[in-house]
Amino acid sequence: MTLGVHSEVGRLRKVLVCAPGLAHRRLTPSNADDLLFDDVMWVENAQRDHADFVNKLRGRGVEVVELHELLAETMAIPDAKTWLLDRKIIANEVGIGLLSDTRAFLEELKPRDLADFLIGGLATSDLPTDFRSGYVALAREATGVREYLMPPLPNTLYTRDTTCWLYGGVTLNPLYWPARHDETLLMKAVYQFHPDFVGSPVWWGDPEQDWGLSTFEGGDVMPIGNGAVLVGMSERTSRQAITQVAAALFAAEAAERVVVAGMPKLRAAMHLDTIFTFADRDIVTLYPTIVDGIHTFTLLPSDREPGVEVVDEGDRAFVDVVAESLGLKELRVIETGGDVYASERQQWDSGNNAVAVEPGVVFTYDRNTQTNTLLRRAGVEVITIVGAELGRGRGGGHCMTCPLIRDAVDF
Amino acid sequence: MTLGVHSEVGRLRKVLVCAPGLAHRRLTPSNADDLLFDDVMWVENAQRDHADFVNKLRGRGVEVVELHELLAETMAIPDAKTWLLDRKIIANEVGIGLLSDTRAFLEELKPRDLADFLIGGLATSDLPTDFRSGYVALAREATGVREYLMPPLPNTLYTRDTTCWLYGGVTLNPLYWPARHDETLLMKAVYQFHPDFVGSPVWWGDPEQDWGLSTFEGGDVMPIGNGAVLVGMSERTSRQAITQVAAALFAAEAAERVVVAGMPKLRAAMHLDTIFTFADRDIVTLYPTIVDGIHTFTLLPSDREPGVEVVDEGDRAFVDVVAESLGLKELRVIETGGDVYASERQQWDSGNNAVAVEPGVVFTYDRNTQTNTLLRRAGVEVITIVGAELGRGRGGGHCMTCPLIRDAVDF
Amino acid sequence: MTLGVHSEVGRLRKVLVCAPGLAHRRLTPSNADDLLFDDVMWVENAQRDHADFVNKLRGRGVEVVELHELLAETMAIPDAKTWLLDRKIIANEVGIGLLSDTRAFLEELKPRDLADFLIGGLATSDLPTDFRSGYVALAREATGVREYLMPPLPNTLYTRDTTCWLYGGVTLNPLYWPARHDETLLMKAVYQFHPDFVGSPVWWGDPEQDWGLSTFEGGDVMPIGNGAVLVGMSERTSRQAITQVAAALFAAEAAERVVVAGMPKLRAAMHLDTIFTFADRDIVTLYPTIVDGIHTFTLLPSDREPGVEVVDEGDRAFVDVVAESLGLKELRVIETGGDVYASERQQWDSGNNAVAVEPGVVFTYDRNTQTNTLLRRAGVEVITIVGAELGRGRGGGHCMTCPLIRDAVDF
Amino acid sequence: MTLGVHSEVGRLRKVLVCAPGLAHRRLTPSNADDLLFDDVMWVENAQRDHADFVNKLRGRGVEVVELHELLAETMAIPDAKTWLLDRKIIANEVGIGLLSDTRAFLEELKPRDLADFLIGGLATSDLPTDFRSGYVALAREATGVREYLMPPLPNTLYTRDTTCWLYGGVTLNPLYWPARHDETLLMKAVYQFHPDFVGSPVWWGDPEQDWGLSTFEGGDVMPIGNGAVLVGMSERTSRQAITQVAAALFAAEAAERVVVAGMPKLRAAMHLDTIFTFADRDIVTLYPTIVDGIHTFTLLPSDREPGVEVVDEGDRAFVDVVAESLGLKELRVIETGGDVYASERQQWDSGNNAVAVEPGVVFTYDRNTQTNTLLRRAGVEVITIVGAELGRGRGGGHCMTCPLIRDAVDF
Repeated sequence: MTLGVHSEVGRLRKVLVCAPGLAHRRLTPSNADDLLFDDVMWVENAQRDHADFVNKLRGRGVEVVELHELLAETMAIPDAKTWLLDRKIIANEVGIGLLSDTRAFLEELKPRDLADFLIGGLATSDLPTDFRSGYVALAREATGVREYLMPPLPNTLYTRDTTCWLYGGVTLNPLYWPARHDETLLMKAVYQFHPDFVGSPVWWGDPEQDWGLSTFEGGDVMPIGNGAVLVGMSERTSRQAITQVAAALFAAEAAERVVVAGMPKLRAAMHLDTIFTFADRDIVTLYPTIVDGIHTFTLLPSDREPGVEVVDEGDRAFVDVVAESLGLKELRVIETGGDVYASERQQWDSGNNAVAVEPGVVFTYDRNTQTNTLLRRAGVEVITIVGAELGRGRGGGHCMTCPLIRDAVDF
Repeated sequence: MTLGVHSEVGRLRKVLVCAPGLAHRRLTPSNADDLLFDDVMWVENAQRDHADFVNKLRGRGVEVVELHELLAETMAIPDAKTWLLDRKIIANEVGIGLLSDTRAFLEELKPRDLADFLIGGLATSDLPTDFRSGYVALAREATGVREYLMPPLPNTLYTRDTTCWLYGGVTLNPLYWPARHDETLLMKAVYQFHPDFVGSPVWWGDPEQDWGLSTFEGGDVMPIGNGAVLVGMSERTSRQAITQVAAALFAAEAAERVVVAGMPKLRAAMHLDTIFTFADRDIVTLYPTIVDGIHTFTLLPSDREPGVEVVDEGDRAFVDVVAESLGLKELRVIETGGDVYASERQQWDSGNNAVAVEPGVVFTYDRNTQTNTLLRRAGVEVITIVGAELGRGRGGGHCMTCPLIRDAVDF
Repeated sequence: MTLGVHSEVGRLRKVLVCAPGLAHRRLTPSNADDLLFDDVMWVENAQRDHADFVNKLRGRGVEVVELHELLAETMAIPDAKTWLLDRKIIANEVGIGLLSDTRAFLEELKPRDLADFLIGGLATSDLPTDFRSGYVALAREATGVREYLMPPLPNTLYTRDTTCWLYGGVTLNPLYWPARHDETLLMKAVYQFHPDFVGSPVWWGDPEQDWGLSTFEGGDVMPIGNGAVLVGMSERTSRQAITQVAAALFAAEAAERVVVAGMPKLRAAMHLDTIFTFADRDIVTLYPTIVDGIHTFTLLPSDREPGVEVVDEGDRAFVDVVAESLGLKELRVIETGGDVYASERQQWDSGNNAVAVEPGVVFTYDRNTQTNTLLRRAGVEVITIVGAELGRGRGGGHCMTCPLIRDAVDF
Repeated sequence: MTLGVHSEVGRLRKVLVCAPGLAHRRLTPSNADDLLFDDVMWVENAQRDHADFVNKLRGRGVEVVELHELLAETMAIPDAKTWLLDRKIIANEVGIGLLSDTRAFLEELKPRDLADFLIGGLATSDLPTDFRSGYVALAREATGVREYLMPPLPNTLYTRDTTCWLYGGVTLNPLYWPARHDETLLMKAVYQFHPDFVGSPVWWGDPEQDWGLSTFEGGDVMPIGNGAVLVGMSERTSRQAITQVAAALFAAEAAERVVVAGMPKLRAAMHLDTIFTFADRDIVTLYPTIVDGIHTFTLLPSDREPGVEVVDEGDRAFVDVVAESLGLKELRVIETGGDVYASERQQWDSGNNAVAVEPGVVFTYDRNTQTNTLLRRAGVEVITIVGAELGRGRGGGHCMTCPLIRDAVDF
């Protein structure tokens, strides 16, 4: 089957996830902020809960690919290993004086162990003790993640952000925080060398280039079908990137319209999918307190340079513009459940961050019982993920999945 | 005369500064954090105080070059203007749909006006009103500095950081915060095209490359003479960069030793020059509370790859290692003045951030009266800068000056 | 003449201020937050600028009383000194083991020196060296202001907050932050013992009681005349206090109406007088970005318990409700000057924090040139205060003055 | 049996806990900071895990008393109910205009429902709809917890802090944060009226008084036996309180020595019991990174006023002073387990916050597997509490328990 994602709720056939691991063992109260986590997690339990999530996805007939494994398979290909180490084991990251020994150490590892360090980070203490001492001492006095020879990438857990399948092609996203840049480099290695991914059409993005203010994260992006793509314009996903992606999609005739949700500037409104996701072909779950503040634009193909026309939707409700883009009269809306306290808490705990495996069947965290009940009352089947540990990075089922193959739906 | 800086206190012959201006008029309480300022400033008074500083420098026989003027002279050179606009007016920064009109607007400006926008930033409201409306509306809904077509660069005030003359050549520094990256690009245009700078040897650095964790800021760097260079290893200046610069200096035989001050991880300890500067050939002023926490390393040339040997100085006092690197028995130390409250306050207000114009003659802020008195008692001539406004970005005389020509001193 | 304040802009005859001093010499970057200051200040210059402000007030015929002097005069009265030291030198503040020696030390001071320590704080290092050592060592290991035997009170600079004359009587305000509670205790000593203040009618408040959530700060309070009082309901001034004060004023027939400005929850909107003040009998200066978000209530006397009726003004503009309360058709409004950046900056720098000495004559900070120009264009005479240092605690002329005698105006 | 706590590890016979409930349902991302929680919790699961903890305690023969139940029993006593409502339903907290109706509403509740609101807070929306509208509208515009008629008290979960049994008597602690003050008032009602508690000797403290800087929290206090009491001097527990408590204990001959741990100023070092607890008569578990920074003092009875002598222990290790106070040669120390990352994470997750039910048998959170393993290897029996939800307020088993009856141990 061909890779491609043609809706938000059509049958999910293949998906990429990333299990918690070494990177999360590196998280501490002092570095969690730098690594973009709100709190540390109990890694063993996070792994158990993630495995359960994967298991349930498989039980629903979804083929699940895990990033450590995928990267290990990729690192087993000599050219891929050389390509990636040439880009990771460089003076700007590892530091001169540590390059050749670090490279030698990594070259001798088994593919899976190498993948673990690529995702989990390489600390000076991971090296054999005969390592050149002055440089290591210098590294130990360095601040923050600079002590690492390769920094940990705990946000790989959120595979949604790094690359996005939009209909028949993919974007390799320049992520907002420098601490996440190397996630996309790992994915490029996969796309370039792994046999299951070689030849995928890339619409936009390349981690080997500098994208400046042009940043793009998959949590803001939804190929909802009918030729439409939703994109949240947020702190992390910029107009500079959105308009380029729109131009690329229109030029390739891969999409016909991009609906831009201009997000209010709030921590709780990090990504569009933290406040708005689809649960069925015409059902969305959303947090009205923030969604009501969205200013909507529509981007359309244009004959004039640069090939994109921007329509300011003014006061129109975001949900109405989305419905129209799907050719629907209206969307059924399931708001975050509970009273004013409970709904704020559930939005925060990823209550609106559902991921569908087929129309009307979604995965969400167990802890948002009130929103889950409302979804069920609307006829949606809700399968739960244990969120006690996984939720501490502020992402739910939608964030933790990068669909690779998903069917279209009819509207 | 040839550009080159051969000490921290030898006669200062030529220096680069940057006056406050449009960039500081863009500073507000809401964006100050993003732009790395603690507080907003009264721009007119900051300009007056800066002009007075420049005037006094000139009164001491220093040739003072101002960045807006230098950039205006550079922008008057057609090739330079094309080179810089080709790198600034790009989709990743301005956004597609706004490129050609923005470029057209800037092309028609006089060189000085263009320089003002390059440093001060270009807001959508600066454009003529017939500008294409959809894209501008989109930009206005964007967050933070992304609303700008070119972001303001208020930290240009601190010319010290962007490029460093180390003996006979210069580094073009990759700065830590993305919000400052373009400062180095402006300087590269100057170095590449302005007749007074063309042909300068560049030891290291290039704003057109991605330097990853390898960041370097001039506030941490001091070519103290006798072939030695001090570098603070701080949040902003990383071991990855320091070791590369050392290797480049050693390879060019431009320096014989780099003394690395491993800084404690404190906001007050931002750059080495915020806690330690020279006032005379053997006099330093320093803040003991933080300097006592420095872990010192010495980097020396080596025949082995990568050409740099790292010596961990362990428990040795930083000041002793510095004295030794100059061939001095000891340094005379002037500590921040006043009681425990006053000294903390004066360090914060750049009390130890002196810049010398010749041995024993320094500029500091007027407000640090107690430290200034101690310097004077030690025989140092102290000329004051009004710091009420200029000091609000947490930088003093040393930070606001980039020496271009400075004599050596004998030790 | 009798103490009493009958308007916001009538002739100001007598006013209380407090000069910067020892308390501000205790401010450091590490304790500034605890002491509610954004930044440290250059105390000598703050004193010079404050003296100039006082001098100009006197030049306008205002009798100016200074708190250190007033407190010194009060401490010269033996009963007053005993009363205050009985309440300050207690185990809960000074700590047992340090009580008798601290008291003995303070008892022997001259009144002015005692006043200086009462306002400026008493550090363990201020005590003679033969002081009992174990307790002092313990105090030195304690955190924050607890190291002090009497904590510094730098916010005394803002005499506006501590007590409010509302027509013919005064409130002794329970301030929001525990760090400021003792300011009101000092003022009670003055009101109770100083001959110029003895016998003043106290409407409400007593620093010897615990007021819980019932906090009240003068920066939110304006006796605008015509029997009306404006009160900002903010983080610092609570509904619990406002309704009690209204009931007390109504019971004493001292006022006929209290207009409550329900403030948005923003740091910039700390007190009502940071966004809205009077410049003439029918001219106000305000910051529309925040004032537009005010939700207004009117409190009126009622026969029913508890003697106060609450009217929700719903969508009515705050300025319209205020005009009506004065019997005016409308108020002339001078908004914060400059473009979007400049006006935000000027509000922050107390641009709307004017204090009138007579109708149409106000004092404001020099730095808010654009707002000052607009006021002048409207016919208001603007006298400037140098704000470089004084403004760092985020308060202007209105905050730094507590009117004691002010005439009514006709409407 | 008589109430009294004679050690940290002797047989625990009776203990007070408080189950999660309504107060935690009020917690949201926006108010969590004000209510001193790091994150919101899934209340149902927190309740389940707390019930399991209680069940296991009972399984170990401990009599467990729960605060909601205890308060309900107390509120069933008419005098107690009157006493407490007279102190809670006052103008300073509820606001005038809302007093009589609020009181009437509460008076009619069943004791358990009343207890739930006393701990969980009373929102305006909890009142019947015919409530007087103007005042309620005013309350709804108020900020933060001031919107409540009685604020929620979620930190009741940590019964350790509010009152401390020290040998044969109790302290009623003035807690540091105003948001927690009312917890002690509830406990006073219990101690004054509940038949199981009436007549308990109170060493010190009274929530009806204002204690100023004299604050004291049970998380810092340990009656370790042999007449010794450990007290952490922290942000929350001040020297002003510690010396008073020592004087009271010495005067009553209830203790012979107080060992003061002067804590470093770090968020992670909130209370002494977050970095140091006992697991057996001579075994402690501690986090060396912080414990090594403790400056220790010993307070001893003295004939001289104020009855307390302070001995500065200077450079002596805290653990050695503690051992000596117990007459032990040394303490066996179990450090937080795992590598540098894991140990920091486990300290943060209350890894050192053990509570013993008898010598060598402790309860800790399940998530700190490495520290738990080390304890087990040392022969300690470790019973685990599920910490996924309960741990989000940064407190463990020691924090969640207030021992009421605990045996002495021999040393």
